[in-house]
Amino acid sequence: MSADIVPISRKQSPAPSLDPMLALTAPGMNAVNAVILDRMQSEIPLIPALAGHLISGGGKRLRPMLTLAGAELVGYQGSRHYKLAASVEFIHTATLLHDDVVDGSEMRRGKTAANIIFGNPATVLVGDFLFSRSFELMTEDGSLRVLKILSGASAIIAEGEVDQLTAQRKIGTSEERYLQIIRAKTAALFAAASRIAAVVAECDDDQERALDEYGRNLGVAFQLVDDAIDYDSDAAAMGKDRGDDFREGKMTLPVILAYARGSEEERSFWRDAISGIKSSDADLDHACSLIARHGAVEDTRARARHFADRAIDALSIFPDGKARQAMTEAARFAVARGY
Amino acid sequence: MSADIVPISRKQSPAPSLDPMLALTAPGMNAVNAVILDRMQSEIPLIPALAGHLISGGGKRLRPMLTLAGAELVGYQGSRHYKLAASVEFIHTATLLHDDVVDGSEMRRGKTAANIIFGNPATVLVGDFLFSRSFELMTEDGSLRVLKILSGASAIIAEGEVDQLTAQRKIGTSEERYLQIIRAKTAALFAAASRIAAVVAECDDDQERALDEYGRNLGVAFQLVDDAIDYDSDAAAMGKDRGDDFREGKMTLPVILAYARGSEEERSFWRDAISGIKSSDADLDHACSLIARHGAVEDTRARARHFADRAIDALSIFPDGKARQAMTEAARFAVARGY
Repeated sequence: MSADIVPISRKQSPAPSLDPMLALTAPGMNAVNAVILDRMQSEIPLIPALAGHLISGGGKRLRPMLTLAGAELVGYQGSRHYKLAASVEFIHTATLLHDDVVDGSEMRRGKTAANIIFGNPATVLVGDFLFSRSFELMTEDGSLRVLKILSGASAIIAEGEVDQLTAQRKIGTSEERYLQIIRAKTAALFAAASRIAAVVAECDDDQERALDEYGRNLGVAFQLVDDAIDYDSDAAAMGKDRGDDFREGKMTLPVILAYARGSEEERSFWRDAISGIKSSDADLDHACSLIARHGAVEDTRARARHFADRAIDALSIFPDGKARQAMTEAARFAVARGY
Repeated sequence: MSADIVPISRKQSPAPSLDPMLALTAPGMNAVNAVILDRMQSEIPLIPALAGHLISGGGKRLRPMLTLAGAELVGYQGSRHYKLAASVEFIHTATLLHDDVVDGSEMRRGKTAANIIFGNPATVLVGDFLFSRSFELMTEDGSLRVLKILSGASAIIAEGEVDQLTAQRKIGTSEERYLQIIRAKTAALFAAASRIAAVVAECDDDQERALDEYGRNLGVAFQLVDDAIDYDSDAAAMGKDRGDDFREGKMTLPVILAYARGSEEERSFWRDAISGIKSSDADLDHACSLIARHGAVEDTRARARHFADRAIDALSIFPDGKARQAMTEAARFAVARGY
């Protein structure tokens, strides 16, 4: 789409916002943040320095927010979820630190990435520290069901990351394979973060499954839009270097769609781009124009809308109210953000 | 010491051997190895390929052996310790993979290191996978006490590794600081591996503490000798590149002692070597000769003997028998190996 055409969808209704979710979880997030700050401490000063660089670096803390929102949804009255939500954020932070090393990222959340400032060795090891801390927190909570859910999710995340690495620079990656990767590397932790709210509240199996499905579908939608934004010339700066996926030869859905729909000449360009032969800024501009020509950003968002709708419908077994509305709007926001 | 003088200690008695320990734990180690092979599998083929390169690469599996020997010592009759011993080995393997990335190692256990063959990204991520798997195994076992001990040990290992990174290339590192680092990065897992045998066997606190102390002191002795061997021109090839510590500017005890005892000229050499200015093969030869001149390898072994003696004495509350004898000889072996 060109810059002077305003898509209809932007006019339909007020843009969905994360604000109701933020308002719903604000008091709880103060408690979670206190746990995070307390438990990232260590007598080795480099650890809180490096962890704090990322943790205080303006992440949305969406995953712990899911645990808190889920707890509100099911009317949980206790306080166990604060520690567990912090544990989820530690797992996420550990993966981000390791991702930055794996991808050689230079930017994260609009700031210089930790690996650039502190070096790869410290970044790997502080990731390990946070990962261990997350299991300490879970163990303190003492629920083996929660430990099973989160240790299982952690293994699946790592598998998804390795799978993504295997698919990197492979032009033949299918949409199905791509979905499999993002279900593992992103959606598994969203699902676990939501699900554990039902576990601490001792909900029945249907409710636990519903929260899992909400988180899982939301995670897929979220990652799809993340990947769309990386090629969306209209998107606001999202804190990561635009074009990172392109330069790393990652087969994300916008590329998969543009390649599938492209002419032979376009496909030849994509083969060179994904294999790393064409990686200049001009090549990135050309890639964005091909993606725009085939509506691949819009269609990636449409795919995301499908998963967001499934997330919203998974909540239908819960009574309507502030929590369900906030979680519904968060799913809509996941699709609309970056406009 | 020069090559034509045979030290008296070599003649005193038959060299201590790991054989009794190997014999004691052989049947159990078959069960542990089966768990390891089964649980390093994944649908992502790169994961077992990379993990298997290290896991089947001829490590001694000393840590899981400690769990099994401890279980024999206290007369444990069950089979829970097989899964937990595998979990300990997964934690260890994950740290080795991450260490190789952190240190840029080229060799590990006499083979090309995984990071050289598979690259740093996959090596980091497969480490994360094994780490997650280790917590899955512990969760399946279901003991929160074991989870607390092993998640705590994992956090301490990561802290020790970061601390070592902080001390790297710092000539002023003291013996006390060095001991603090190796207690964390090495001895914490030795202690946990031994201790959990007492937990599954539901031993009393004194027995649990005794096994913890045995493992902890053995771990310190083991690391001291590892660090001595890296500068011992008489030592057999140990599978790691001789001189790795030197080139990485690690302040290990042989260097700390040689620097403390050195002339002003020698100290000047050490400052240049540890800061990385002098790192050639000739510099390494000179370093080894200075370390030999001040008896720093022998004295590092003497320090190790102190900790091995403490490990052996920690076992005194247990009845004499095959298990205690094997564990006693293993501690003597830890000091003598590499001769």
